[in-house]
Amino acid sequence: MKNFTRLADVPHPEALIAEAEACQKNFWMPEVGRGKMLGMLFFNPSLRTRLSTQKAAANLGMDTMVMNASSDGWKLEMQDGAIMDGDAQEHIKDAVHVMSQYCDILAVRTFPSLTDREADYQEQVLSQFLAHAEVPVVSLESAIRHPLQSLADVLTIRNQGLNKPKIAVTWAPHPRSLPQAVTNSFMEWSSLLDAEVVLAHPEGYDLHPEFAAHADRITHNQMEALEGADIVYTKNWSAYGDYGQRLSVAEDWTVTAEKMAQTNQGKFLHCLPLRRNVVATDAVVDASPVYTQARNRIFSAQAVLKTLLES
Amino acid sequence: MKNFTRLADVPHPEALIAEAEACQKNFWMPEVGRGKMLGMLFFNPSLRTRLSTQKAAANLGMDTMVMNASSDGWKLEMQDGAIMDGDAQEHIKDAVHVMSQYCDILAVRTFPSLTDREADYQEQVLSQFLAHAEVPVVSLESAIRHPLQSLADVLTIRNQGLNKPKIAVTWAPHPRSLPQAVTNSFMEWSSLLDAEVVLAHPEGYDLHPEFAAHADRITHNQMEALEGADIVYTKNWSAYGDYGQRLSVAEDWTVTAEKMAQTNQGKFLHCLPLRRNVVATDAVVDASPVYTQARNRIFSAQAVLKTLLES
Amino acid sequence: MKNFTRLADVPHPEALIAEAEACQKNFWMPEVGRGKMLGMLFFNPSLRTRLSTQKAAANLGMDTMVMNASSDGWKLEMQDGAIMDGDAQEHIKDAVHVMSQYCDILAVRTFPSLTDREADYQEQVLSQFLAHAEVPVVSLESAIRHPLQSLADVLTIRNQGLNKPKIAVTWAPHPRSLPQAVTNSFMEWSSLLDAEVVLAHPEGYDLHPEFAAHADRITHNQMEALEGADIVYTKNWSAYGDYGQRLSVAEDWTVTAEKMAQTNQGKFLHCLPLRRNVVATDAVVDASPVYTQARNRIFSAQAVLKTLLES
Repeated sequence: MKNFTRLADVPHPEALIAEAEACQKNFWMPEVGRGKMLGMLFFNPSLRTRLSTQKAAANLGMDTMVMNASSDGWKLEMQDGAIMDGDAQEHIKDAVHVMSQYCDILAVRTFPSLTDREADYQEQVLSQFLAHAEVPVVSLESAIRHPLQSLADVLTIRNQGLNKPKIAVTWAPHPRSLPQAVTNSFMEWSSLLDAEVVLAHPEGYDLHPEFAAHADRITHNQMEALEGADIVYTKNWSAYGDYGQRLSVAEDWTVTAEKMAQTNQGKFLHCLPLRRNVVATDAVVDASPVYTQARNRIFSAQAVLKTLLES
Repeated sequence: MKNFTRLADVPHPEALIAEAEACQKNFWMPEVGRGKMLGMLFFNPSLRTRLSTQKAAANLGMDTMVMNASSDGWKLEMQDGAIMDGDAQEHIKDAVHVMSQYCDILAVRTFPSLTDREADYQEQVLSQFLAHAEVPVVSLESAIRHPLQSLADVLTIRNQGLNKPKIAVTWAPHPRSLPQAVTNSFMEWSSLLDAEVVLAHPEGYDLHPEFAAHADRITHNQMEALEGADIVYTKNWSAYGDYGQRLSVAEDWTVTAEKMAQTNQGKFLHCLPLRRNVVATDAVVDASPVYTQARNRIFSAQAVLKTLLES
Repeated sequence: MKNFTRLADVPHPEALIAEAEACQKNFWMPEVGRGKMLGMLFFNPSLRTRLSTQKAAANLGMDTMVMNASSDGWKLEMQDGAIMDGDAQEHIKDAVHVMSQYCDILAVRTFPSLTDREADYQEQVLSQFLAHAEVPVVSLESAIRHPLQSLADVLTIRNQGLNKPKIAVTWAPHPRSLPQAVTNSFMEWSSLLDAEVVLAHPEGYDLHPEFAAHADRITHNQMEALEGADIVYTKNWSAYGDYGQRLSVAEDWTVTAEKMAQTNQGKFLHCLPLRRNVVATDAVVDASPVYTQARNRIFSAQAVLKTLLES
């Protein structure tokens, strides 16, 4: 494995999942990353991803350096050939090459504009990292994918020991415009689950076809998806078609205990953070394994870092 | 010991002090916390507390992760049952449960509103941590107490080897409204010192009765307290009665060399940071053991972390 | 070696360079700094210096604590005897003494006002650190010097294996007023290179005489300096005479491939970050060893920390 930014980067997904499962059982392996440095660069704030990845690195005996592009006031030029007489102090090309001198693995979190669909779906920032890094690159969520989350999700669902489960992937309301990354990525990785995947969202919230194609079925009827579901994977996202917009309020898409009662004792999953009583009610969240799912972010990151160090 | 947020959390205070004294003599014990993670969450900035606790963790071989709730732009919902369609991205309940997955000990700094006395004295934020954490909780100063500081203070005073010392706890002027936490907490922990404690403050600056009750005597006459004192524990605080207010300027409460000359070669102590020539004059601060007192914050934190790890 | 803030602090420069060269060959020496703490205090943001020094500390097995004076909202009083009833919460004297309790080495980045020349050239902030620190002080760039950069530069040039090279130190355009520190410091350290040093800048950009004195020749004709040069050390700085000002645009001082063609296959060096196509064109930067020069910052810092730990 050279980088970890999408499922297609993983030559042996089953081996990676097996590694994560091994980390769940025994996480302490301080010799693996001894003397190695993980650089984490955030273009927007993160806590869960930062903490779980930092913990994963510590489990491996790696050191971690964190850089916050925004709060550290570090404006980067993204255009090749630019005459840099404006705000940007450094070209991303130089920044990535320099960070490559100080780190053994570079992890980066970028985000979508939610206004320029083409730029977002071309991964404008992440692709610069991949082009210029001299060391492996790990995505800590990019404009359109969140593979460390997806690996943790796959791990969490596998751990349930279900036989060909029905997974409802359902849109839910949210007061802000959010990226499609978590859902896109989950759809991509759901191909590793021997499951029936039903994608449910209000009209107008279709995903990019590449990701929607992983669904066995797509519906605008949330209850049709939830009925008999073993897993209720919930997430808000803004529209892909009318790009980045919040189209309808669709408050009745909140996941409630009444809806969950129609599932097959289904488990509610969510990547967190979660707006309680908007995305799902307190009763649903409190009965769910979302903290275990969050814990699995450690083992997901640890398996990825370990695999990269050993490649 | 399950948590460390107040003296009542400590089943064996003498053992804890003995542990801190042992750390003073030999702080390097990297096997105690090997593979363990300390999470530190700050709701308001801190330097001294962060640095001393981070050093204590390093002495124990623990890793540390720091989260700044404000600068990392992480708004937390505090109300149970809230419909979270406003600014707050995550409920504190979920945040605490998630951080519990990544850390072996959670240390948190909260602060008082200084406007809502009841909420402050009920420790609204800290109590949420205690309710939801799945790992031990350490207070890095809360709305009304600062136990790591108090333990360092007890250590510093014990180190003087005085026989039943007279301790003057004196209010001093300050240009801003400050919490009562440091003084409250020192009063609480002074019960571990075989000392005569005289509390001195201008009228209107009475502490909450629970904390004031630890004084052997209360006076509005600063010199009466300082006269013959072995220790001059100095701190500004805002009013408890007229809650959070700065009542009088009382500039003549600045601790000066002339006043210190009336003590029994008394030691001036202060938790720092300190407004020189407002709280106390340069001559007083320069002759004091406040840097040693600050150094003892390491051993206070180290004894607490070690005791929690071994409980 | 007691501190590292300027060349005059280094009793044996050749031994220090030899140490840095040894680190280049084998950087992993985790026993040297085991149990030791490096405190890094930034009065203005830094990434390259922070990351390379943190990596150097990690190579030595040291722990690192980072403090950002500005973003952590920590205003320090600089005047002795001040009545601190204003914004500043702590006197620098106390801050430095306290940090000395928690760290084995204190590294500090300060910056010039670029308005008060006398204050800047007296190193107002750094000198307070030197006066009050109880542990060795390392400059991470000060108002007028950047010795860790200079040591890396010397290392980079020595590595070229040139025989009495011609070094052109040339001013280049930049959209903002920058400090003179990097160039001052390079001039100081160039005394360790058996080289001919030609300093080139537009009229009005003379350096302080102490630093300019290290040049074998000074010219206002950039091409005269570049002609036949083995090394083209490039940097923008604001005027020393008309202090802190940007005098002329002098856009024709941008280093181009055409100009480089007149050198003796000269190597372009720059401390980075660099404004591409303003300071130098893409072609010049892309063909240069600036990333190796950046990498050498690790070994420069590591040699300094190791020497201080062993002194």
